[in-house]
Amino acid sequence: MIETRVGLVGCGTVGRGLVELFGSKSSYYGEKYGVTFKLIFVTDVMKGTAFADEGLDARSLLTSLEGGRNLSLESFGRASGASLPELLSVARLDVLCEAAPTNYKTGEPGMTILKSSLSAGVSAVTSSKGAIGLDMAGLKSLARGNGAILRYESSVMSGTPLINLVRGPLAGCDVLRVEGILNGTTNYILTKMESGMSYRDALAEAQKLGYAEADPTGDVEGFDAAVKVCIMANEFFGKHLPIDGVRRTGITGVTAEDVAEASRSGARIKLIAGVERLGAEVSGYVGPRRIEASNPLASISGATNAVTITTDNLGDVTIIGPGAGKLETAQGMVSDILNIVLLKHGCK
Amino acid sequence: MIETRVGLVGCGTVGRGLVELFGSKSSYYGEKYGVTFKLIFVTDVMKGTAFADEGLDARSLLTSLEGGRNLSLESFGRASGASLPELLSVARLDVLCEAAPTNYKTGEPGMTILKSSLSAGVSAVTSSKGAIGLDMAGLKSLARGNGAILRYESSVMSGTPLINLVRGPLAGCDVLRVEGILNGTTNYILTKMESGMSYRDALAEAQKLGYAEADPTGDVEGFDAAVKVCIMANEFFGKHLPIDGVRRTGITGVTAEDVAEASRSGARIKLIAGVERLGAEVSGYVGPRRIEASNPLASISGATNAVTITTDNLGDVTIIGPGAGKLETAQGMVSDILNIVLLKHGCK
Repeated sequence: MIETRVGLVGCGTVGRGLVELFGSKSSYYGEKYGVTFKLIFVTDVMKGTAFADEGLDARSLLTSLEGGRNLSLESFGRASGASLPELLSVARLDVLCEAAPTNYKTGEPGMTILKSSLSAGVSAVTSSKGAIGLDMAGLKSLARGNGAILRYESSVMSGTPLINLVRGPLAGCDVLRVEGILNGTTNYILTKMESGMSYRDALAEAQKLGYAEADPTGDVEGFDAAVKVCIMANEFFGKHLPIDGVRRTGITGVTAEDVAEASRSGARIKLIAGVERLGAEVSGYVGPRRIEASNPLASISGATNAVTITTDNLGDVTIIGPGAGKLETAQGMVSDILNIVLLKHGCK
Repeated sequence: MIETRVGLVGCGTVGRGLVELFGSKSSYYGEKYGVTFKLIFVTDVMKGTAFADEGLDARSLLTSLEGGRNLSLESFGRASGASLPELLSVARLDVLCEAAPTNYKTGEPGMTILKSSLSAGVSAVTSSKGAIGLDMAGLKSLARGNGAILRYESSVMSGTPLINLVRGPLAGCDVLRVEGILNGTTNYILTKMESGMSYRDALAEAQKLGYAEADPTGDVEGFDAAVKVCIMANEFFGKHLPIDGVRRTGITGVTAEDVAEASRSGARIKLIAGVERLGAEVSGYVGPRRIEASNPLASISGATNAVTITTDNLGDVTIIGPGAGKLETAQGMVSDILNIVLLKHGCK
């Protein structure tokens, strides 16, 4: 059995999902992959820190987190107000998991957290797109220089494989274009508009359901999708695009009539985000587009995500799956951790 | 640069595709993965054997193969009539590629070829489904016992990732069901029937285009899909199903009226092949089914393949891509080889 010592920064929805999976699926991971996870510490800027060298108990931890109690007040081994570098220096982690809320302009707090981990030679997995979108090359180089591995499958399409799909199973394919539906909130709004709702009403409903935030700009103006385009440009084409370098149109200008007109011929309006290479040029784009019924992207409703990868030898390969969610995003992080661990142990 | 010594058994369409990729994409593989392929030997029961310890030239080899000339008459290094075990004993291969035509009843000639390779401790990649469908467990155990790796991505959906998708990027997911459109010929026929063609006429057209064989039984009665179900049962659930253990109905009973009736409500008739686990029971099935428009599988036309993987934490993940083709199948083999090589060198 391969014991894997894990630390977690960020105990919001995704972080709690990860703790939940470590608890509920531990025997599955053991039987199927020969891996046991020991959660050495959990730290959250709002909730404090819990640390136990022999591993925290997932169930008690969840009870505390869901009860909204402060971690350092609980008896999870050594309660601690230690800083992340201090925690890292004593925890002997195999992998640090970063699941803090992300700011796509500064990349923080992920940037600082990932840098701490990688510069200490500790491999890191993140679900947040800010830091990866801003400086993938810098973070990767830091990882390489310190013998660590950095993975970020969940930063795009939650746990639905895209980054690792191209990296592993599609190895050998030259990728020419990657585009699809990368923002569930806008896809939900556009889907609702097909039943005759106005943009305003559909947005209000998305807000009521918690899909859209009070200030919906990040989603409806295409910023969220644009950050994912920056990640894809770097990942698939080795090209850094700043977010302002992505041609971007949101869905605020899409009218009920546009949607209805498309529907009449079996087509649908979708917010398409993509990146493509033409010669040496790499360009990223986000904008509403009419998608014909014969395109698999036309079958995507609600908060589901889908991406078509256009390659030299396979033509189009499309992957469809969840684009958000607690366990969905946490599962992407588990996949990254397992791949790091099994790669390091060469027993995959 | 990691030099990878490769041998190839079978110079039909797929084998030639592999030689073509080794030739045309060698600088791409070098730059992107740091891997160079040296094709040490090529052997085909009908065409003879070419062997060169320093590596065969892909371009001259293709010219000969496409000219229909006998390999051993050409000056590709040491012309040889050697048996496969003899070739293996001198070739010092990293990976053997098997791309011979497959017989799903006997698994031959793949079974014998793969056993020779694995028992000599040489990792193997195959595109043919016969041997893998018949005795995956036996072959894997032989591989393990000899320190070799066996991979077979192209045996289902050609190079479209399914096996390696679940193995790598979906690691940690518990798979509950895998089903989809796994036979391009029948999907082509059903697609044609939607434009009002009878089954007979659609089959005749598929035969004229070379999609269906003169004796179409393997495709239209669902045997081809059923072998893939056997592979999936073993791969995803560790359960050996003999082909007769798959509930199987072909498309010969599907009428133009069935297809038209489904079309009227936006649905489509598809030949669905799948495997699912219920408790300890694993069951495999192939049969025509009505698929509603909201299901991504309904958007699949012609010879394209698509599979939906139902999991515990991600719900449904669907992958769509080519189901056959020279370079498409060869690409799946290249992906397998790269993954073996990079895994062995721990630098993925």
